[in-house]
Amino acid sequence: MSSKKIILNSNRHFEIIDITSMINQEIDIDSGIVNVFSRHSTSAIVVNENEKGLLADFELMLNDLISDRHSWQHDCIDNNAKSHLESFLLSSSETLPISDGKLDLGTWQSVFFVELDGPRNNRTVNLKFISD
Amino acid sequence: MSSKKIILNSNRHFEIIDITSMINQEIDIDSGIVNVFSRHSTSAIVVNENEKGLLADFELMLNDLISDRHSWQHDCIDNNAKSHLESFLLSSSETLPISDGKLDLGTWQSVFFVELDGPRNNRTVNLKFISD
Amino acid sequence: MSSKKIILNSNRHFEIIDITSMINQEIDIDSGIVNVFSRHSTSAIVVNENEKGLLADFELMLNDLISDRHSWQHDCIDNNAKSHLESFLLSSSETLPISDGKLDLGTWQSVFFVELDGPRNNRTVNLKFISD
Repeated sequence: MSSKKIILNSNRHFEIIDITSMINQEIDIDSGIVNVFSRHSTSAIVVNENEKGLLADFELMLNDLISDRHSWQHDCIDNNAKSHLESFLLSSSETLPISDGKLDLGTWQSVFFVELDGPRNNRTVNLKFISD
Repeated sequence: MSSKKIILNSNRHFEIIDITSMINQEIDIDSGIVNVFSRHSTSAIVVNENEKGLLADFELMLNDLISDRHSWQHDCIDNNAKSHLESFLLSSSETLPISDGKLDLGTWQSVFFVELDGPRNNRTVNLKFISD
Repeated sequence: MSSKKIILNSNRHFEIIDITSMINQEIDIDSGIVNVFSRHSTSAIVVNENEKGLLADFELMLNDLISDRHSWQHDCIDNNAKSHLESFLLSSSETLPISDGKLDLGTWQSVFFVELDGPRNNRTVNLKFISD
């Protein structure tokens, strides 16, 4: 009843998808919280400003942070170590406030699903709504 | 009823404000959780030890992590790309346990609001209390 | 009633302990969320894939991120600044969905306690279960 899912398809290796309005459409409580959880360990949920230049900067920053100087061991298994390591840094979930039946965010905030190992079909985000 | 706000003014560009006692003052449940959410995408909520030297180290680490070697695109819009990128890394919220009517933290833990683009007035932190 | 604790002992300075099954054993609700919170500011809670090579890569990445070029001020107090700084980046908690009486994770996801300053006895993780 208070559990919903958002299903996403990504089109690029790295892609940032604004899911704010998708979450708002699913809200069925007046006041409380929503736990937004990505079921994939090569993705992340983040909150920030939806400005095109900033989202490009974000991708550049992640590329800087994960060094290319190692032969990552996980690349022998599945060749996507960097995607997992970015996910470690960013976290797979955010828990967010709901007031007056919608996300209670600041003016410049959006909620994003971050694809770190696309393109992929059927990326699933769990939503759990808890009334206060 | 179970929603509260903390309003903060910051005095420096980078500033770490301990909000543990402010949260404790607002708690109106005996056992459950509190979602602590900053309504700004150039700030963060973190949990760690309130030791002066460590908080200075934390600022130094963030300066190391966000490289100066790029011309960030968002700087053409609003000249605070670095502040947003630090916020991406740190997260805008923490959800924390409450027991016996107060935050159930470890001995060496405090909750901090991190100002990444101050000084600013009326920084707002949403608190949502959920009883278990 | 809906609060539990997991007590852990670590054996190495850096150690990643899979606590997924420990959490599942404590769940006493059918649907909702669990807040998993480490009471220590030299540790972290993360969600990712339990693959041995990847977990070794994760340790290597953290060593890259925290520079050795500074004399950290906190090392004069307690000689574990790096452990605290890693904890700042990773976060001390995760809030996760529960469905059908167990953690509702993806196929390749586990929940980990990350020891950043071991070996230590009696590391404590608070669990708060909230029904939806």
